[in-house]
This record gives sequence, structure tokens and C-alpha cells, in this order.
Amino acid sequence: MEKDDPQELESKFNSKTKAIILNTPHNPLGKVYNKEELQVIADLCIKYDTLCISDEVYEWLVYSGNKHLKIATFPGMWERTITIGSAGKTFSVTGWKLGWSIGPNHLIKHLQTVQQNTIYTCATPLQEALAQAFWIDIKRMDDPECYFNSLPKELEVKRDRIVHLLESVGLKPIVPDGGYFIIADVSLLDPDLSDMKNNEPYDYKFVKWMTKHKKLSAIPVSAFCNSETKSQFEKFVRFCFIKKDSTLDAAEEIIKAWSVQKS
Amino acid sequence: MEKDDPQELESKFNSKTKAIILNTPHNPLGKVYNKEELQVIADLCIKYDTLCISDEVYEWLVYSGNKHLKIATFPGMWERTITIGSAGKTFSVTGWKLGWSIGPNHLIKHLQTVQQNTIYTCATPLQEALAQAFWIDIKRMDDPECYFNSLPKELEVKRDRIVHLLESVGLKPIVPDGGYFIIADVSLLDPDLSDMKNNEPYDYKFVKWMTKHKKLSAIPVSAFCNSETKSQFEKFVRFCFIKKDSTLDAAEEIIKAWSVQKS
Repeated sequence: MEKDDPQELESKFNSKTKAIILNTPHNPLGKVYNKEELQVIADLCIKYDTLCISDEVYEWLVYSGNKHLKIATFPGMWERTITIGSAGKTFSVTGWKLGWSIGPNHLIKHLQTVQQNTIYTCATPLQEALAQAFWIDIKRMDDPECYFNSLPKELEVKRDRIVHLLESVGLKPIVPDGGYFIIADVSLLDPDLSDMKNNEPYDYKFVKWMTKHKKLSAIPVSAFCNSETKSQFEKFVRFCFIKKDSTLDAAEEIIKAWSVQKS
Repeated sequence: MEKDDPQELESKFNSKTKAIILNTPHNPLGKVYNKEELQVIADLCIKYDTLCISDEVYEWLVYSGNKHLKIATFPGMWERTITIGSAGKTFSVTGWKLGWSIGPNHLIKHLQTVQQNTIYTCATPLQEALAQAFWIDIKRMDDPECYFNSLPKELEVKRDRIVHLLESVGLKPIVPDGGYFIIADVSLLDPDLSDMKNNEPYDYKFVKWMTKHKKLSAIPVSAFCNSETKSQFEKFVRFCFIKKDSTLDAAEEIIKAWSVQKS
């Protein structure tokens, strides 16, 4: 996956930069930042005295040839980093709405104030279940049955399958290093979107059309972008591949039939 | 329990009053509003075209001689009322952090927008458990085993016990019509608070002193008050009586020993 340009990145920092948000593995790009890239970010955080809010919710979902690194472990970063994790993403229970933040006391105490005055507590029985799940899997980290190992292995097969599917119909998906999403420029499929509302970006119209006419859903990537970068991404949509094989079978049938129909 | 003064209440309304918050059964007062009182409030809401956000989380915890009424059922109120309920309070699972809002579509749709952009979802397994709990108890509303009947019956005994305990040491608790809290003017116990920080209201100092020196905890009632009414309530603290009998036994021992020591 493409690297960040260190100079472009530095141009976004100045003396007023209080905090940055880092996301690795990245949603929706699927990028897993490597050691050199994270060192560039860490150096900038230290140089500009900036906090780093590091969203690492897909930390265990990393595919062959990639390794998840925590920026909080880089020299000088612990005291300025809040690392965010997710039970939903770690143990495939997104409906539980549980997560955690890890950081030094002088930062976490402010998060505790916000927590106390907003959500107040998380659901305690689910917290207990989560603690038990960690307890089981942390004791068997070298075992292929450990969920931290078995889930990415299972998903890598699904990733490869969806990559081949999209390529087989002429699309060029961006193969994700991690996470369970894949993005692709879909404008080649060129459906007739003339019956869709006109005041929306191409990808919004595309996914609404596809959901309605092809019974296949995806997320418009420009929804993740600010106004500066929206136009670069509006031909891309994000597919999710953490699905039962029977669901992927159905997606394959839809996409292949659509492609035949086009050619 | 004392009635609201309709004229005082009306003096708080004007053409700019967008919404009021009603709470019945009331925390911390334990007041359950009767039909006449709710009619006064409903008439004011209609006269001033005001929304009513009705916090009824203790709706099932109502003691002999009182009846919980929903203001949304009063003529002209459905279309201007959002009724709030709580799984935690209804089924004694406060750690679940689940609740609901009931109202007309033109109001609820705005709550859905806030929900979608803040908490997003509640914990789905707990929602399923809650639905099952309702399903069981709604089919046996006339059965004493139904939780809506058994819990207030169980709590009424505890309420009466704590009323008698507080009275036996010379305090004058305000006997609650509903809910599981009881408030009392505790200044009669007159502990030596000279070692407590001086910049806090009496009730804050009192409960901190009592927690530390008597191992009995309560909540300062002035925490619920705005600056206008704080001074009227700072001699009151709120005790909670939804406790195991062994815990109430321990509280009784502490309070009786304290009283003997004073006299």
C-alpha cells in the first residue's frame, strides 16, 4: 500500500496542532502502518508537542506480511498517546458497544471525566464476558485456536476470494493489509444512474443504485473524506468481507452476472 | 407528599418555554404525581405549547395508596410528550444501561438522529434479554410473581423498615410514594464536621464524614438542586433502600449505635 509523504504530512502540523488521530489498520483503506511510517508520525508528534489518539480497533486483523505496531511503544510516545481498542472488532461482537482506552494517567483521567458525565458506565455483564474472553485467549497466544490468530487466518481467505472476484470482473481493488474492508474504483461497472437523485457524489448514487437494483450493498468511500479529498475518492466504494461463505457466494453470483450482462 | 403550587408552577412558564422535564415517581423526593397534579402540568404544557420530557424510570416502583399515571395519556399530551423508561430501574439491572423513549413519530425521529450520531446502538444481546423479560412479565400482569408486582411489594417492606429506623433515632424522613430512595433532614445527628473541607455545602460534608467515620453512605440532596433551591435542601441526604436485608441490618446497627452515642 502507498506510503505517506513525510513532507506533505509535516505541512499539516504547526504550533497550534493539539492532537492527531492515527488509524492503523486503517478503515476504509486497509493500510497497516509500518515501523518507518510510524516513526515519521512519532517524530512529528514530538517535534510539535502533539497528542496522538491512536485508533487501533483492528489491531488483531492483520494479514500475512504485515505486523501491527503500537505507536505508544515508540520512544517518547507513551506520555502523549491514547490507544483505542474495541471488543466489537477484537472478538466479532460489534453489537456489544464496548471498548477501551490505554494511556498515561495524566491523559486517561480526562477521559474518565468525560465517561463519568456521558455514558457513565458500560454494560457490566458484557464487560465481565470480555474480561473472560481476554483471559482465555491471552493464555494461548501461540495456539492457532486463539481468536487473535484464528480470525485473521479465516478472514485472509475471504479477503483473497473477494480480491480475485473483483479482479475477475476487471476492477482493481486495493488489497488491504488489515481490517475487513476492501475498496475498489467501481466506475468501470458504469451502471445507468440517471434515475438517482443528482445532488449526491457518484459513490453515494452508485451504492444506492446497487443496493436497490443488484441487492448488494457497500459504503461510499467519500463519506470518510473531508471536502478537500472527497473528489479523489468518489469513484470508490467499500465492500465488507467479514461475511458467511454463503453470503460471499451470493455476492459472487451477483457480480459475475452483472459483469456478463455488461460485456 | 406536598403538592406543587399551580401558580408558582405557571410563573415558570412563558412563551419561550420549549420543554419541561417531569419526573414521576420522583428521584430523590419519592413523590408520585396524582391525576390532579398531572392535569395542572398538562394544561400548562398545552397553554404554552411546551414539550414534556417525562422521566418515568421508576414507573413500576409505586407503593400502596399511590398509582403511577403517564402524562402522555392525558388529552392533548401524546403529541407533545416523550416518555422515558429504563431497563435498569424496571428489572433491577442498572449495569445494563438500556432504556427507551416513547412518543409520536415527529418527536422520536429527532431522538433517532441523536442516537444514530452518539451512542449508535445499545448492546444487542441485552436488548434481546430485555425483550424476553417484558414478554414473560406482560403475560402475567395479574400474577404476584410478575416482577412489576413482586419488586414494589418487596421494596415496600424495606421502605417501611428504613422509615421506622430513621424515626427511631429522632429523624423525620420524607416517606416516599415510589422509587427506592428516602430523604431525611440529618442535621439533628449533628456530627463534628470540623475536619471536613469548609468550601462545600453541609450535606456534602455530612455524607463524606459519614462514609469515612460511620461506613454508611448516602447522597447529598443539594447535588440535585439549582442555585436557587440548594440552600433549602442542604440539610437533607438521600438513602437508598434497594439493598439486601443483611445490608439494611448493618445500616440499622450503625445508625442505632450512633444515636446512643449522641444521647
